[in-house]
Amino acid sequence: MGAAQSFRELCDRTKNTNVRLSLPAVCIVWQTAMIILFGVFIRYNEESDTHWVEYRKENNLSDIQNDFYFRYPSFQDVHVMIFVGFGFLMTFLQRYSFGAVGFNFLIAAFGLQWALLMQGWFHSLDYTDGKIKIGVENLINADFCVAGCLIAYGAVLGKVSPVQLLVLTLFGITLFAVEEYIILDLIHAKDAGGSMVIHTFGGYYGLSISWMLYRPNLDQSNRLQSSVYHSDVFAMIGTLFLWMFWPSFNSAITDHGDGQHRAAINTYLALASTVLTTVAVSSLFQKHGKLDMVHIQNSTLAGGVAVGTAAEFMLMPYGSLIVGFCCGIISTLGYIFLTPFMEKYLKIQDTCGIHNLHAMPGVIGGIVGAITAAAATESVYGAEGLRNTFDFEGEFADRSTSKQGGHQAAGLCVAICFGVGGGILVGFILRLPIWGDPADDNCFNDEPYWEPTTEECQNQQPSLSLHGQTTKMIALSQSM
Amino acid sequence: MGAAQSFRELCDRTKNTNVRLSLPAVCIVWQTAMIILFGVFIRYNEESDTHWVEYRKENNLSDIQNDFYFRYPSFQDVHVMIFVGFGFLMTFLQRYSFGAVGFNFLIAAFGLQWALLMQGWFHSLDYTDGKIKIGVENLINADFCVAGCLIAYGAVLGKVSPVQLLVLTLFGITLFAVEEYIILDLIHAKDAGGSMVIHTFGGYYGLSISWMLYRPNLDQSNRLQSSVYHSDVFAMIGTLFLWMFWPSFNSAITDHGDGQHRAAINTYLALASTVLTTVAVSSLFQKHGKLDMVHIQNSTLAGGVAVGTAAEFMLMPYGSLIVGFCCGIISTLGYIFLTPFMEKYLKIQDTCGIHNLHAMPGVIGGIVGAITAAAATESVYGAEGLRNTFDFEGEFADRSTSKQGGHQAAGLCVAICFGVGGGILVGFILRLPIWGDPADDNCFNDEPYWEPTTEECQNQQPSLSLHGQTTKMIALSQSM
Amino acid sequence: MGAAQSFRELCDRTKNTNVRLSLPAVCIVWQTAMIILFGVFIRYNEESDTHWVEYRKENNLSDIQNDFYFRYPSFQDVHVMIFVGFGFLMTFLQRYSFGAVGFNFLIAAFGLQWALLMQGWFHSLDYTDGKIKIGVENLINADFCVAGCLIAYGAVLGKVSPVQLLVLTLFGITLFAVEEYIILDLIHAKDAGGSMVIHTFGGYYGLSISWMLYRPNLDQSNRLQSSVYHSDVFAMIGTLFLWMFWPSFNSAITDHGDGQHRAAINTYLALASTVLTTVAVSSLFQKHGKLDMVHIQNSTLAGGVAVGTAAEFMLMPYGSLIVGFCCGIISTLGYIFLTPFMEKYLKIQDTCGIHNLHAMPGVIGGIVGAITAAAATESVYGAEGLRNTFDFEGEFADRSTSKQGGHQAAGLCVAICFGVGGGILVGFILRLPIWGDPADDNCFNDEPYWEPTTEECQNQQPSLSLHGQTTKMIALSQSM
Repeated sequence: MGAAQSFRELCDRTKNTNVRLSLPAVCIVWQTAMIILFGVFIRYNEESDTHWVEYRKENNLSDIQNDFYFRYPSFQDVHVMIFVGFGFLMTFLQRYSFGAVGFNFLIAAFGLQWALLMQGWFHSLDYTDGKIKIGVENLINADFCVAGCLIAYGAVLGKVSPVQLLVLTLFGITLFAVEEYIILDLIHAKDAGGSMVIHTFGGYYGLSISWMLYRPNLDQSNRLQSSVYHSDVFAMIGTLFLWMFWPSFNSAITDHGDGQHRAAINTYLALASTVLTTVAVSSLFQKHGKLDMVHIQNSTLAGGVAVGTAAEFMLMPYGSLIVGFCCGIISTLGYIFLTPFMEKYLKIQDTCGIHNLHAMPGVIGGIVGAITAAAATESVYGAEGLRNTFDFEGEFADRSTSKQGGHQAAGLCVAICFGVGGGILVGFILRLPIWGDPADDNCFNDEPYWEPTTEECQNQQPSLSLHGQTTKMIALSQSM
Repeated sequence: MGAAQSFRELCDRTKNTNVRLSLPAVCIVWQTAMIILFGVFIRYNEESDTHWVEYRKENNLSDIQNDFYFRYPSFQDVHVMIFVGFGFLMTFLQRYSFGAVGFNFLIAAFGLQWALLMQGWFHSLDYTDGKIKIGVENLINADFCVAGCLIAYGAVLGKVSPVQLLVLTLFGITLFAVEEYIILDLIHAKDAGGSMVIHTFGGYYGLSISWMLYRPNLDQSNRLQSSVYHSDVFAMIGTLFLWMFWPSFNSAITDHGDGQHRAAINTYLALASTVLTTVAVSSLFQKHGKLDMVHIQNSTLAGGVAVGTAAEFMLMPYGSLIVGFCCGIISTLGYIFLTPFMEKYLKIQDTCGIHNLHAMPGVIGGIVGAITAAAATESVYGAEGLRNTFDFEGEFADRSTSKQGGHQAAGLCVAICFGVGGGILVGFILRLPIWGDPADDNCFNDEPYWEPTTEECQNQQPSLSLHGQTTKMIALSQSM
Repeated sequence: MGAAQSFRELCDRTKNTNVRLSLPAVCIVWQTAMIILFGVFIRYNEESDTHWVEYRKENNLSDIQNDFYFRYPSFQDVHVMIFVGFGFLMTFLQRYSFGAVGFNFLIAAFGLQWALLMQGWFHSLDYTDGKIKIGVENLINADFCVAGCLIAYGAVLGKVSPVQLLVLTLFGITLFAVEEYIILDLIHAKDAGGSMVIHTFGGYYGLSISWMLYRPNLDQSNRLQSSVYHSDVFAMIGTLFLWMFWPSFNSAITDHGDGQHRAAINTYLALASTVLTTVAVSSLFQKHGKLDMVHIQNSTLAGGVAVGTAAEFMLMPYGSLIVGFCCGIISTLGYIFLTPFMEKYLKIQDTCGIHNLHAMPGVIGGIVGAITAAAATESVYGAEGLRNTFDFEGEFADRSTSKQGGHQAAGLCVAICFGVGGGILVGFILRLPIWGDPADDNCFNDEPYWEPTTEECQNQQPSLSLHGQTTKMIALSQSM
C-alpha cells in the first residue's frame, strides 16, 4: 500500500515541475538574441584577427608575444574550474548529481555569451566603429563573470528549476558587469582574483535569493539533503580541480610578467596553508576527532578566495600563508556554527554553504587587499613597480597608496550592496509561481527535471525498489 | 535454481571470448615492430634536438620561440581529450566502464605510435637522410589520428573484443594517414580541427564497421545496454573535458599567433551555443520536459566538431554561434529519431550515437568550411592575411578563394569515401570467427575481458541480490 | 546479537584511533612555524618581484621571457598529478576513498611548504641577504619533493593514522632535500624526471616504513583490502591524469628549449610502449586472458618513471620505446609474483605495490640514465649541446661523459641508501604507540578517521549488510 501510494505521489509531483515549454522557449529565444547581438557588435581584436600578421610587423613583435600565449594556459585552467570545478563540487548530494553538473553546464554556457556582450560594452568597445573587439582576455573575463552566478547557484542548489536558474543568471551577469565597471573603472580598485567583484558579489547575491525563496517545510526533503559515499568522492573531483587551478584563476588577467608570476605564487601558498587549518578545526570539533568531508570539500578553498584581491600585490609569501591560515579556521567554523544559525534564525537556507566558502572569505579578501594597497611603499615596490602594479596612470597618476586603500574598501562595499540588493530584487521575481520549481518534499532530487536511469526503479529509490522487488518475490515464492 | 543456473551460464559464456594468446601476441609483436621501425626511421627535429642551441643562435631566436612553447599547452589539452575525454564519455553503460576507459587507453597508446610513423612518412620525412624528424606538432597529429579510431570505437562499444579493436586501429590509422595526405596535401584543403579528416572519416568508418558486424539478437543484452546513476556521472567527466578543451583541439595545429587565437575563440563560442539548443530540444521532446542525459553528454559537443574546419577562418563570432545553434538541434534530433531508425531499418547499431556526434556534425563542418573559404575576401582578411590563412604559397600561390571552396568540398567527399569504404573492408575482416568477440547475450559487459572485482559476487549480480531481497520482502509482508 | 555486537566493536575500536588532540595540534603548530620561517627566509625572486619591470629592461628581455611562461603550464600539469593523480590512483580500495584523496591532499599541502624551505636553503639561498628567492621553478620542485612522500604513502595506505602520515612527510621532505642536494649538486648527477631522487628514494622509503610497521594479522582486514567496480573506475581517473601529464613532469625543470621539448617526447613514447606490454603480460597470466585492473591502473605508468633520468638526454625515440617495453613487463610481473612474495617472506606489506610502480622502475631509470650519459658523444650532441645538456660548466667543465655515467650510478646508490635508511629510522619512530593508528581488523577503512555518510551503515559495509541479510533469512525461515 504505502509503497504504491508514495509512488503515485512521486509521479503527481512532477506535474508542477513541467518545464517542457518554458525551458526550450527561453533557450531558443535567448540564443537567437545572442546571435543577432553578436552579429551587430562583436568582432575579433587585432590579436585574433587575420590582420595580426601586419600588425605584428608594424610593431616589431614576435608571434609568441600575441596575448594568446600569455593567457591561454590560464584560461583553460579557469575554464576547467568553471565547468568541472564548480560542477562536481556540487555533486555531493546523493540524488542531485545530474542537476549539479548539468545545470552548472547550462548556466555557464548561457551566461558567458551574455557576459561577453555586457563586459564588452563596458571595457572592450572600439569607439571608432562601435564594435566590441574580443580576444582571449575577454573569454577569461566571461568565465569570471559566470563564476559569480555559479556561486549563487550553490545557495539555491536543489531548490529551483532550470528556468529559475536562467533568470538568476541573466540578471546576475548584468548586475556583475555594472558592479565590475564601477569597482574597477570608476573607483579604480584592483581585484585580480575577484575576491570582491566575483566572490563577495556572487555570495551575497545567492544568499539574498535563498532568503527570498525561504522554504519553511524543507525538512520534508531531508532524507535527500545529505551525501553518500560515492557522491562525496565525486565532489572531491570538483574540490581538487578548483584548488589546483586557483593560482591560474587569480593570475589569469594580472599584468604580464611579474604580475602573473607573483599572483600564482601567493595563491599557491595561501591554499596550502588553508588545508592545514581546515583539517585542524574540522577534527577538533568532531566527536573522536573525525574529519568531516563537507569541510575538506569546501573550506580548503577559502584561502584562494581571500587572497584574490591582493594576489598581485607584494603580499609576501608569509602574508599569503597568514591569509590562508585565518580563512581555513573561519570558513570551517562557519560550516559548524554559522550555517545552522543562519537557517534557523535568519531563514537563509544555504545548500552548499557559500557564505563560508565565498561570501566571508571574499570580504576578508577585500579587506586584505585594502590594507595591502594602503601599506604599499616605493621602497618595496620600486617606483616603476608601484606605478605598474596599481596602474597609477592617466587620471590616476597622482593617486597615493593610502588613497588607493580607501578606494579598495569602497569597492568592497559596492560589491556587497549589489549582491544583497540584486539578490532581493531577483529573489522577488523568482517567487512568481510560473517557474516550475519543485515542491518542498521533492527538493535535492533529480527526478523532477531529468529522465530516470534504468536502475532508478530497482535499487535506488527506496519506495520504488521495494515495490519492484515485491512482484519478483511473489514469482519466486510461487516457484518454491 | 534459476539464479544458480543463470550464474553458471554467465561463466560458460567466457569460453568463446578467451583472448589469452591472441591479445598478448598482437601487443608484443606490434610493440617490437614499432621499436624496430622507430630505430630505423624516427629522430628528433631541430627544435627537440640538442643542436637547437646552435640552430637558435644561427637564426637569432629566443628559446621561447621553440615550437614547444607555442603548442605544448594545447597538446596537453588534446591529450586529456583523447584519454580522459573519449575514455570517460563511453563509461555511461552500467557494466562496461572498464572496457570503455581501458580499451580506449589501449587503442590510443597502440595507435599513436603507428600514427607517428604513417604521418611522418607523408609529412615529416627529411629527404636528406630519409629520417622522420618529430617534434611536439607530430605528437598532436598522432593524437588527432588516434581520435579517428576512438570515434569508430564508439559505434561498436561493448560488441567487440580487444583484439578486434587493435585490428580496427591498425587499419584505421593507415587509412587516416592516406586520406589526410590526399585532403591536406594533394587537394590542399584546410582542416584545422579535423571536421572532415577526423570526425567525418572516423564517424563513417565506425558506422560501416558496425553495419558489417550487425547483431540481430543484440536485444538479448538489453538489460545491460543502459546507464545507471553513477555511470552517467562518470560519463559527464568525459563530456566536460572534451567540451572544455575543444578550443585547444581546434587551435592546436593552426598558424602561430592569430590562427591559434581565432580558432580558440570560434570553438569556445560554437560550443556555448550548442549547449542551449541541445537543452531546448532535449526538453521539448521528453515527457514533462525532462532532460535526457544522453543528449547532454553528447549533443553538447557537436558544435565543436562542426566548427573544426572553419575555426581558423574569419568565421566571425556570430558565425560560430550559428554553427553551434544548428548542430545542437540536429544532433539531439538525431539521437531521438535517427539512431532508432538506423538500427531498425539500416541495421546499423551505433552504441554511442557517433553518427549524431561526429559523422553528421563533421559533414556540416566540411560544408561550413567550404562556404567560408569560398566567401573569403581580401577586404576582410587583408592581402597578407588571406595568403597566410589559406597558405596560398608555392604551387597554390594563384589559387582563388572560390576555387579553394570547391577543393574543401572535394576534401569532404574523400573523407566520406575513405570512411565508408575502409569501414566495409575492415568490417569484413572483423567478421572472421577468430577474434574472440562476445556472444549476443554477453555484450556491453566487462565480464568476458576483465577480472571481476570483489563486490561482483555479493551485491551486483541480479540473481544474488534478488535472493537477498527475498527475505526483506517477507519481513515486510509480516510487518504489514 | 552478532550484528549488534560486531557493530559495537566497530564503534569501540574508534577509541584508540582518536586523533582529536594530536591532529589539530600538529597542524596548527606546524602551520604557525611555517609562517614564521617564511617571514624570516622567503621572498620573491627577480622574476616574480615588482622590480622585474626594471630588471627586464636592463637585460633587454620581453615579458614572455619571464620563466613563468616557460614553466607554468608544466607546473599546473605536475600539480594535477600530485593532487588528482596520486590522490585518485589510491581510491581503488572499496572503503578508503576519503582517506586516499583526503590524506593525500593533507600530506601534499603540508609537505610543499616545508619543501620550499628545505630546498630553498640548499638551492635558492641568496647569500647577499640570506633570503630564499622563490619563483615558479621552486613551486615545481616543492611538488616534486612532495611526490616522494606520496609514493611512500602508497605502501602504508590504509594502515596508518593521519598523524603518522604527517610525521612520515616531515622526515620524508627533510631526507629528500638532503639526498637531492648530494645527488644533483655534490655528485652533479642529472635527474630531470627524478627516477632516482623521487621514485627510487620514495619507493624504498615507503617500503622500509611498511616493513617496520609489519602487521602479522592484517588478513583480518582482508574483506576491505579489495576494490569494487566503482572504486576501480575512480582509480582510473588518477591513472590517466598521471599518465597524460607525465611528459610535463619529466620536462618541467629541464633546460629551456630543446631540453623540455625532448624530455616530453621521450616520456610520451615510453608511456605508450608500456601500455601495450602491460596489457600483454596482464592478459597472459590471467585465467581466460582477462585483464586485471590493478595492472592497468599501475604498471602502465612504469615507463614514465623509468625514462625520468634519461628523458632530457639523446635517448632517441626508439630508446624510449625500449625502456617502456621492459618496464611494462617487469612491473606487471612484479604485481603478479613479487608483491605476494614480499608480503609472505620479506614481511613487507605494500598496499599499492609501489615497489612495482616506483622502486623497481626508478632503479631501472637510474641505470638507463647512467648508461645513456656514459654513451653520450659530441658527434651526437654537438659540442655545445653536450656541454649544455650535462651542464659541464664551472668545476665540472672538464668532466667526461663516461665519468658522468659513473656519477649517475653513484647518485642511484645514494637514493637507495637514503630511502632504506631513512625509512627504517622513521618506521621506528612510527611504531611508538602514541599515533592513533587503526587496529589490524580496522585497516583500509575510512570509518576510524572520517565522519560517516548517510548510507554508510545501511548498504555499504559488507560485513554488516551481510550480517543484516542473515538475520532477515532467519525471519524468512520462521515465516514459512
